[in-house]
Amino acid sequence: MSRLAVTEKIVATKVAKGLKWSDVAAKVGLSKEWVTAACLGQMTLTAEQAGVVAEIFGLTADEKKWLMVVPYKGSLPTSVPTDPLIYRFYELVSVYGTTFKELIHEEFGDGIMSAIDFKMDLQREPDPKGDRVSITMSGKFLPYKTY
Amino acid sequence: MSRLAVTEKIVATKVAKGLKWSDVAAKVGLSKEWVTAACLGQMTLTAEQAGVVAEIFGLTADEKKWLMVVPYKGSLPTSVPTDPLIYRFYELVSVYGTTFKELIHEEFGDGIMSAIDFKMDLQREPDPKGDRVSITMSGKFLPYKTY
Amino acid sequence: MSRLAVTEKIVATKVAKGLKWSDVAAKVGLSKEWVTAACLGQMTLTAEQAGVVAEIFGLTADEKKWLMVVPYKGSLPTSVPTDPLIYRFYELVSVYGTTFKELIHEEFGDGIMSAIDFKMDLQREPDPKGDRVSITMSGKFLPYKTY
Amino acid sequence: MSRLAVTEKIVATKVAKGLKWSDVAAKVGLSKEWVTAACLGQMTLTAEQAGVVAEIFGLTADEKKWLMVVPYKGSLPTSVPTDPLIYRFYELVSVYGTTFKELIHEEFGDGIMSAIDFKMDLQREPDPKGDRVSITMSGKFLPYKTY
Amino acid sequence: MSRLAVTEKIVATKVAKGLKWSDVAAKVGLSKEWVTAACLGQMTLTAEQAGVVAEIFGLTADEKKWLMVVPYKGSLPTSVPTDPLIYRFYELVSVYGTTFKELIHEEFGDGIMSAIDFKMDLQREPDPKGDRVSITMSGKFLPYKTY
Amino acid sequence: MSRLAVTEKIVATKVAKGLKWSDVAAKVGLSKEWVTAACLGQMTLTAEQAGVVAEIFGLTADEKKWLMVVPYKGSLPTSVPTDPLIYRFYELVSVYGTTFKELIHEEFGDGIMSAIDFKMDLQREPDPKGDRVSITMSGKFLPYKTY
Amino acid sequence: MSRLAVTEKIVATKVAKGLKWSDVAAKVGLSKEWVTAACLGQMTLTAEQAGVVAEIFGLTADEKKWLMVVPYKGSLPTSVPTDPLIYRFYELVSVYGTTFKELIHEEFGDGIMSAIDFKMDLQREPDPKGDRVSITMSGKFLPYKTY
Amino acid sequence: MSRLAVTEKIVATKVAKGLKWSDVAAKVGLSKEWVTAACLGQMTLTAEQAGVVAEIFGLTADEKKWLMVVPYKGSLPTSVPTDPLIYRFYELVSVYGTTFKELIHEEFGDGIMSAIDFKMDLQREPDPKGDRVSITMSGKFLPYKTY
Amino acid sequence: MSRLAVTEKIVATKVAKGLKWSDVAAKVGLSKEWVTAACLGQMTLTAEQAGVVAEIFGLTADEKKWLMVVPYKGSLPTSVPTDPLIYRFYELVSVYGTTFKELIHEEFGDGIMSAIDFKMDLQREPDPKGDRVSITMSGKFLPYKTY
Amino acid sequence: MSRLAVTEKIVATKVAKGLKWSDVAAKVGLSKEWVTAACLGQMTLTAEQAGVVAEIFGLTADEKKWLMVVPYKGSLPTSVPTDPLIYRFYELVSVYGTTFKELIHEEFGDGIMSAIDFKMDLQREPDPKGDRVSITMSGKFLPYKTY
Repeated sequence: MSRLAVTEKIVATKVAKGLKWSDVAAKVGLSKEWVTAACLGQMTLTAEQAGVVAEIFGLTADEKKWLMVVPYKGSLPTSVPTDPLIYRFYELVSVYGTTFKELIHEEFGDGIMSAIDFKMDLQREPDPKGDRVSITMSGKFLPYKTY
Repeated sequence: MSRLAVTEKIVATKVAKGLKWSDVAAKVGLSKEWVTAACLGQMTLTAEQAGVVAEIFGLTADEKKWLMVVPYKGSLPTSVPTDPLIYRFYELVSVYGTTFKELIHEEFGDGIMSAIDFKMDLQREPDPKGDRVSITMSGKFLPYKTY
Repeated sequence: MSRLAVTEKIVATKVAKGLKWSDVAAKVGLSKEWVTAACLGQMTLTAEQAGVVAEIFGLTADEKKWLMVVPYKGSLPTSVPTDPLIYRFYELVSVYGTTFKELIHEEFGDGIMSAIDFKMDLQREPDPKGDRVSITMSGKFLPYKTY
Repeated sequence: MSRLAVTEKIVATKVAKGLKWSDVAAKVGLSKEWVTAACLGQMTLTAEQAGVVAEIFGLTADEKKWLMVVPYKGSLPTSVPTDPLIYRFYELVSVYGTTFKELIHEEFGDGIMSAIDFKMDLQREPDPKGDRVSITMSGKFLPYKTY
Repeated sequence: MSRLAVTEKIVATKVAKGLKWSDVAAKVGLSKEWVTAACLGQMTLTAEQAGVVAEIFGLTADEKKWLMVVPYKGSLPTSVPTDPLIYRFYELVSVYGTTFKELIHEEFGDGIMSAIDFKMDLQREPDPKGDRVSITMSGKFLPYKTY
Repeated sequence: MSRLAVTEKIVATKVAKGLKWSDVAAKVGLSKEWVTAACLGQMTLTAEQAGVVAEIFGLTADEKKWLMVVPYKGSLPTSVPTDPLIYRFYELVSVYGTTFKELIHEEFGDGIMSAIDFKMDLQREPDPKGDRVSITMSGKFLPYKTY
Repeated sequence: MSRLAVTEKIVATKVAKGLKWSDVAAKVGLSKEWVTAACLGQMTLTAEQAGVVAEIFGLTADEKKWLMVVPYKGSLPTSVPTDPLIYRFYELVSVYGTTFKELIHEEFGDGIMSAIDFKMDLQREPDPKGDRVSITMSGKFLPYKTY
Repeated sequence: MSRLAVTEKIVATKVAKGLKWSDVAAKVGLSKEWVTAACLGQMTLTAEQAGVVAEIFGLTADEKKWLMVVPYKGSLPTSVPTDPLIYRFYELVSVYGTTFKELIHEEFGDGIMSAIDFKMDLQREPDPKGDRVSITMSGKFLPYKTY
Repeated sequence: MSRLAVTEKIVATKVAKGLKWSDVAAKVGLSKEWVTAACLGQMTLTAEQAGVVAEIFGLTADEKKWLMVVPYKGSLPTSVPTDPLIYRFYELVSVYGTTFKELIHEEFGDGIMSAIDFKMDLQREPDPKGDRVSITMSGKFLPYKTY
Repeated sequence: MSRLAVTEKIVATKVAKGLKWSDVAAKVGLSKEWVTAACLGQMTLTAEQAGVVAEIFGLTADEKKWLMVVPYKGSLPTSVPTDPLIYRFYELVSVYGTTFKELIHEEFGDGIMSAIDFKMDLQREPDPKGDRVSITMSGKFLPYKTY
């Protein structure tokens, strides 16, 4: 047994039962973004959160324990993603990467936006010319320091 | 001469003159996100926009013309970026890529968030525990269709 | 169970029963291009379409559900394909890639041809010097916009 | 001097003089698709064709000779293209590659579509929901033979 | 079941029974080069040829059908082969690749040697200083054409 | 100065003067295959051979000396070649690699075909259905030995 | 001009003048670890720090400005380093990577050691069996949070 | 059975029983750093050490023997790690690699820090601004010698 | 069944029975270097040698036959090895590769050291400052010839 | 100026003057193996050694100083070498890598052969069946220790 096996069981159960991530998140009591990442094997759950998830997906006691172990993160099979939806995000990094860098440094100086102390919100943005995906990311700025 | 040479001249001039992207953007009259990307060789300017940029950075008439030619896009030297700031965005794609995919499909069905009909806003988010980088992305949802 | 397992079952059943994609497509009532891509795990079917496919290939109720889930797309095992037929298309991208780029930009300006709002038709073109493969691709032009 | 240097001079001259590939093609008397590929260093010109191109772009006698030498083909800097327009074609190969393969084999048997005995036509397809890029490819089918 | 599984069964049976490819080829009635490639999953057999092969290797009816399906070609696990015998051929491409290119273009003009309309003969060449491997390859020349 | 620089001078001179490799080979007194490889920086010439080549291509005394130094071999810019002509040879290795291996081992036992004690002859093979490229390779078989 | 050019000038001057990084650091008034990284193009200097460095290495006013611009970080030419000293650190990550992960998570829970809020001290550790390199790294622990 | 299988059993047992590496290390009587690496398949245990580990994790006699065999080392699935915690160490090598090199050579001359005659200590460093991870590495300096 | 499966059985049996390669080699009657390579799936055994190995490791009749079939050679999972012991040999090629090349060419002219007609002897070299590994390699020089 | 530039000057001078590495080594008073590696930019020379080399190759005072600086090691342009002579050594690592590992561990236990405390001797071994290259490597065994 491994975290990967638990993730595959969760996904297969979701397909078989026709569950929705937003409903799972509501039962866990946290954002759909974090809960989905956790169910997909990228985050660590508390005992209580793991209990909720285990019940929803019919996990055994041992499978539930894997949800509480810090996983080896990284959810994609190749370094350049082949899935068109995910590739578009990679493309944004490729095309706008130096723009992110210039503007953050202009505003904050040398440092990074944390990908750990980070949260994200994904919404549908109605638009007469075609609805839009709206994603708001918020990460703490961490400055480099001299020593 | 090539677009790359023009980009390098713009960046070198920016360092020598101590310019700021937000000031350049204000003179061009567009968002700092788009203007920075354009100056870094990722977008195509109109004659008028190119004229403003050419004057700011002291470009020749031929260099200005390159700003109006669609560039070969992609701003990073390696497929996995080594710069820590840019890597954090790549890490977000790696860790959250399948989460983006699941949640967008749950909300919209099969399709992608356009990286072309797309806009972005980057702001400082004051926070007593340390200021945060806030990025809002908005891209049109494009559905796959049967035929 | 996973979409990959369903795809493999479909392909194995096709070999065992000697089915043809064009017949499958006729039963589904859509183009052979889209239906083949869907059966090979690249597109998402509606309940009705999935029902037809499930019956043809003898899928279980759970296997049928996977056809209705958005798959992780990308159908090739390596980034440069080794199969000679598929490589020829990669070669076209390699040799003609900058030509596509120049001519589309000359005609439309900066933007892309959508690979999502896209359709394709593949036909045999009789020719006394040897029949030809004729492929017509049609994708919506998506312009980059300033903001 | 090399073919690459000649290509770069052609492209730089095109930018400086504001030429269009379709006009160049008209003067050469061939399709814009083939002429653009040739000017971008992917095809070999006859003495007459090279003479026309050399005059348009102000090439020297030695530079003109390079147009008549078979080039080392391949126009992209990385095996997975970073430019969004060109990537979409790569994505088509990735997503539809096995579909191309299945349908061509179903129609023709084992073999390939030639990328050599090949022609291509790229047109604007007016559409009220947004104009489309239409590309028709025609390549001779080459069967594998036993021996 | 898949073509790969059939290939592995053929190879395992060959080892267990101590068969020789040249004998298999004689029974099929074609060259040992083509028959070996076919048995190793690179070529497509007719019903009759598949019947002979199926009998020799004890294949089931379903396994035999896979021999008649066009396979996903490519027989090596890595893009640069590690096996010393096969690497020597890769080395020939690496060292002599530009020589092949120059001499074929000098003789034929722009185009390629077909790897599809192609045949090959491999023989032992007795030599007092050590026997030699002699390989004769013959592929149709396919010229690029203007259009 | 380096061997690469000498190779580039040879190639540029060949284009400028319109020379043919077969004529160069005739003056050197060896096969066109070996002489072309040598001029392209893959083989080492004797003083006499280098003298002939130096005169043909107008090399200086120091440039001539580089022809007599063993080069760092390998003539292609990427591990999977992008040029269609050269790729076809790579494809032959990919598709027929295991066939080469099986047939050579069946005939000779464990060992390799030498790529060093090796010669090659490339000819035009007239054929009413389209002329063919014929390549005969002959390499010494080198057996693995126990010790 | 670019930061890379400034770094190369600093390194060449250091060789020509026989300077030591520890002396440079003493003049800058910071640790040798940070100052060396900064001079090698990985950190951003204040105007004052840049002034000291510029004087030591004879930089022009424009070169000095580059020291104050946030650089594109990453100091190695390949993703797996070839230099034996640097490779040993990569080897530590390869061999001990999962150990780092297990022990930090056991002590702190899910999160990372910051490579930004980070400092390092490198010392000679005298030892009769051969002196040792002692490196102390200290990075802030950053926990993942739910949201 | 293989060392990998034994490692997976150890990790799965640790999750199921809720063990801690520091407790395992205390029973083995060695540092937690070394014992964790050993349990994760990177080090070789003596019979006595293996006996303790086998008892803790319920290994069979044959599984215990694998702990005493030198393993094929390397604990990460990709050459650039995707896990954020482990990536930060890779980032340190990328950003500080040349700094390590310069400072060690300045102090010791040409040579390396051994990754074999090496020890490591990982501690929590309490800090009011957020606790820190403190890692002390100590490796023997090995000089290159002339011969 | 495959050669890989036989190799894994041999290695697992060696661990379970506590065998030594030097003892296996003594029973086979050949050097430990060659016999170890053969047992690890890199060399081909005669019927007699395979009989000895099969008895030692308890192989079945079919498993024994695989030892007599020429294997697909190459024993490492990645092109740059992660195991520290094996990496040191790769490092020697990386650091000393051009030295090998220069000195062999200075002594022998253009050609290679055969890796086929090759033998190797590995010994412990006692040394008061720490015992040494001594490896003597002897490979036939194969000259390139003109033709 | 850089070490690479100095290496290229040394090599170009060697070709122009027709020098031999063994003569250079004799003047330096060390083995030809070490001196060649040093001249090729892989080792660090003392002032005295650098003086001898500088005189032989006509280096300036600044160029000579680069010989005394520890270089960034690694002498090959690709991770899998294309040069046939050097590839054979890489092939030995690929084919015999696990054999090296097994035999060294059987003799010495867990640890490595040092590539730093290492020496090498390369000789011609006369043999009536063709002279052989004989290479003797001697590296200190470094054991892993517990802590």
